[in-house]
Amino acid sequence: MKIVDIINKKKHGFSLSEEEIKFFVDGVVQGDVADYQASALLMAICLKGFDFDETLYLTRAMRDSGVVMDYSHVDGIKVDKHSTGGVGDSTSFIIMPILASLGYKSVKMSGRGLGHTGGTIDKLDSIKGLSSSLSKEYIENQLNEIGFCIVGQTPDLCPADKILYALRDVTATVDNIALISASIMSKKLASAGDLIILDVKYGDGAFMKNFSDALSLAETMCAIGRREGVKTIAMITDMNEPLSKYVGNSLEIEGAIGVLKGDKNRLRDLSVALASNVVSECENIDYAEAFFKVCKVLDDGTAYEKFNQMIAHQGGDLSSLKVAPVVTEILAKEDGFVHKIHAEKLGELVCDLGGGRRKKEDVIDYTVGVINNVCVSLEVKKGDVLCKVYSNECLSDEIYEKFSSVFEVRRESLDKPRLIYAKINSVGEIILY
Amino acid sequence: MKIVDIINKKKHGFSLSEEEIKFFVDGVVQGDVADYQASALLMAICLKGFDFDETLYLTRAMRDSGVVMDYSHVDGIKVDKHSTGGVGDSTSFIIMPILASLGYKSVKMSGRGLGHTGGTIDKLDSIKGLSSSLSKEYIENQLNEIGFCIVGQTPDLCPADKILYALRDVTATVDNIALISASIMSKKLASAGDLIILDVKYGDGAFMKNFSDALSLAETMCAIGRREGVKTIAMITDMNEPLSKYVGNSLEIEGAIGVLKGDKNRLRDLSVALASNVVSECENIDYAEAFFKVCKVLDDGTAYEKFNQMIAHQGGDLSSLKVAPVVTEILAKEDGFVHKIHAEKLGELVCDLGGGRRKKEDVIDYTVGVINNVCVSLEVKKGDVLCKVYSNECLSDEIYEKFSSVFEVRRESLDKPRLIYAKINSVGEIILY
Repeated sequence: MKIVDIINKKKHGFSLSEEEIKFFVDGVVQGDVADYQASALLMAICLKGFDFDETLYLTRAMRDSGVVMDYSHVDGIKVDKHSTGGVGDSTSFIIMPILASLGYKSVKMSGRGLGHTGGTIDKLDSIKGLSSSLSKEYIENQLNEIGFCIVGQTPDLCPADKILYALRDVTATVDNIALISASIMSKKLASAGDLIILDVKYGDGAFMKNFSDALSLAETMCAIGRREGVKTIAMITDMNEPLSKYVGNSLEIEGAIGVLKGDKNRLRDLSVALASNVVSECENIDYAEAFFKVCKVLDDGTAYEKFNQMIAHQGGDLSSLKVAPVVTEILAKEDGFVHKIHAEKLGELVCDLGGGRRKKEDVIDYTVGVINNVCVSLEVKKGDVLCKVYSNECLSDEIYEKFSSVFEVRRESLDKPRLIYAKINSVGEIILY
Repeated sequence: MKIVDIINKKKHGFSLSEEEIKFFVDGVVQGDVADYQASALLMAICLKGFDFDETLYLTRAMRDSGVVMDYSHVDGIKVDKHSTGGVGDSTSFIIMPILASLGYKSVKMSGRGLGHTGGTIDKLDSIKGLSSSLSKEYIENQLNEIGFCIVGQTPDLCPADKILYALRDVTATVDNIALISASIMSKKLASAGDLIILDVKYGDGAFMKNFSDALSLAETMCAIGRREGVKTIAMITDMNEPLSKYVGNSLEIEGAIGVLKGDKNRLRDLSVALASNVVSECENIDYAEAFFKVCKVLDDGTAYEKFNQMIAHQGGDLSSLKVAPVVTEILAKEDGFVHKIHAEKLGELVCDLGGGRRKKEDVIDYTVGVINNVCVSLEVKKGDVLCKVYSNECLSDEIYEKFSSVFEVRRESLDKPRLIYAKINSVGEIILY
């Protein structure tokens, strides 16, 4: 088998066999396939497509390129939650304590962020002392005692994905559903959950800018999970505005704590919906019954207690959470209704303040960010506070204007936008909301 | 400007600007564009296409990536002949002495061969003592005294092409008309001829397997030449069987000498046609008149004398030409007519004998090769010699059978195949033969 023949085959639009795809992935990891050959094949895949079987083969080969975790001797149903990435999305910090309160187990192996969407580990790193690099024994102990933990991805998890993702990032081959599906699902399947729940974001602030792409991505990933014998469900949720009012690393931890302490908002609504779907699927009960169970442990403080236990067990000190000292209020320039809060633009601006990475080597400022005062459809008067920006230096007029332009205020009123568009259940049925 | 944006633009099918293409080519040479980015763009070009302007911009940028030769102070019309590569093609050794006999000047900067088609410099290297690495002064002196010389490409000629060609070879991005055109024409335009004559091969043994691709390649290259102000003509000629009876490095030199000494065959016919077209275009005379001039210097020995002068001036000793000692006759297995002589297969078999390179580092055996006894349409009887194979060891039965399978003999008679299919003159008119 020669890699140039495999590239040529895909270039001419033919489907690749499982052996060919495995040869490619193994070659990438072992260095027998040069990066310039990998990138040529990635481009051919973007332009000629991968059918479902090819996507499945790629997922399997990437999963098997490294260590596959095994938590089979930890009791309870292991749940793995993944979001395709959004702005102000800190549902993990709410869902995992809820599920732990209900007896589920979950280990989240998370990456660091790049660009406008924050990484779960970056958010955790804003808590002083917290370690996201734990031994297998420590993780198992924490699972048995508390029920969940959040750790960084180890280098031996899907090394093929790490190499290919780095290449895709610099060769304009990121936005392909087959490649995204394989990248996400290889890591999920290597993480050994009994149930995978996928939060596929759709909208301005997400990688998937239109609904049909988001649905197609969700369907592909769910089908891969089913084929590999892992219960997999997905929800397609809104990212046309930031999910929560809090954007920024330490601020998003605060936002999550707010919900755990009783705040009612979109962040709570989505967290509850995701958790309820997990419970409904795993316990084979009505959604309403599952919803009741979820709300109970959230409202009675059990979930908050679990969250605090997790932070403490991983060595974190919540009292250390800090926000940047300079607070600038962005004011409405006219009366009207909020029609848009550009999520991606807001994420980019927080990134510019130092809250995110442009390059892998960048050091993050955990304290900067934004608290929105408004959401889409809300009526505002000229001079009302749209959001508060937390930064280390005063905002220049130019930056102020950029933040101001995140918010579109118009005369006409509008309906409150939807939060959830569809879900895919564990047998692959699509339910539109 | 960022290379990832340029890749993305082409991936989505948009045309690239001259600045963008120059940014890419300069980046490749300076190392600012990584090879994995270059190969991703090359694949996107193969699958989304380059229009004529983009192809022209690429040609210019590659030409300007290195030294552009200047022979303006050498008197006479400078002619540059190029073949897209075939089996048994040694027309350069005949055309150049003919043109020199008629007062034209030509410097052929030639590459080494890879795969089934031989390289001009490899063939010359079979002559002991001959140097193909000459100083500019030596070349100019030889041009003034003899009228032509054949030298190897220097590393500073089109360095961008060298890098990109090496990448294309291992990333399945060779067979694209825009990329082939730019690769050939950048080198031709950097070689500073007054007239470029292109022999575009078409058929089983050529890179262009069908006529319309060959015509499209020829048209593109001629149009690039015209746009850059250099008279450029092309002929589309047959490579469904080897051009001459001689295949192999030293044997092809012998075949060319045969024609210079009076042999009448397809090699002579094509050489005369190519040379006559040059003379007709440059002197603005009828093809018949040009043909008469060309035949005269060929038949009266002037061209042969020029050839000998060139060899001597470059230090070569023709008496050193050697062929391998073991001669195996491949015999016809049945009565019939020769329907096919698979040129590519024959080239590959000679390559296997050691007569060509599989990898750049391979050392060539100049002495091995084949002399065909037959050509397509010839009638043969069972037991007739189809060809003689020259090798260093006896052929195994398996290799014998492989050589035997190069020749297809069938009952039915057939017409003699054509040698020339079309030409493109210096104003871009296509003349079908």
